[in-house]
Amino acid sequence: MSVDDLIKSLNFNDKGLIPSIIQDDATGKVLTLCYMNEAALRKTFEEGRIYLFRRSRSMLMMKGSTSGHVQIVKKIYIDCAENSLLFRIEQKGGACHAGWFTCYYRETDRAGKVKVVEKKVFEPSKVYTQGR
Amino acid sequence: MSVDDLIKSLNFNDKGLIPSIIQDDATGKVLTLCYMNEAALRKTFEEGRIYLFRRSRSMLMMKGSTSGHVQIVKKIYIDCAENSLLFRIEQKGGACHAGWFTCYYRETDRAGKVKVVEKKVFEPSKVYTQGR
Repeated sequence: MSVDDLIKSLNFNDKGLIPSIIQDDATGKVLTLCYMNEAALRKTFEEGRIYLFRRSRSMLMMKGSTSGHVQIVKKIYIDCAENSLLFRIEQKGGACHAGWFTCYYRETDRAGKVKVVEKKVFEPSKVYTQGR
Repeated sequence: MSVDDLIKSLNFNDKGLIPSIIQDDATGKVLTLCYMNEAALRKTFEEGRIYLFRRSRSMLMMKGSTSGHVQIVKKIYIDCAENSLLFRIEQKGGACHAGWFTCYYRETDRAGKVKVVEKKVFEPSKVYTQGR
């Protein structure tokens, strides 16, 4: 199967996107859930860096293009329904724009009590000097 | 914060759903991406078992209610944008309806070459005798 065939076999949602789980390959930590359109997926396969479709700005971008916190693709998995993907990656810096290694930096118990369980790995105001 | 307050703080999508990543707590393997509506989330918090909103059937169900392959909640995380959740769980049997431990049982390389990288943990025809 070629990348073209693979992309054709996937079920993009009604907005033309496929949700992609990003997991740190070294630690196993889940970092983000991002959304890729066909162009983002194609670039990700070509370059081995995570590209995503930023829904808030409706634009294709390489993850880390502003911050340097790129995600280097190690392994790619397809789910049983061909409607989501899993990428195991090497994370440079932190995945979360708010300064954390993972976007899932807050834990809640089943009573709804929330606490921060990660340490900051960078200071956003120093990294995003021209906004994101 | 109570569970009510927590649920109010979340950003459900335009279909009233929040995507939830399910990860096996023991192995770190990502198992599925499921979708919860408010009722499913509330039941998950109350009972400590994953409930989901089956989009194909528009119904609330406990994961594993037919197969016995329930997912016991160990840890719950909230992402930075409050629009996705991560559950670390204990998986009974296999998470994938097709008989695999994880729905991400196929790996692809960057050239689009796909291979199965898991072993079957159950035979679907023996588990789902009355359909899913």
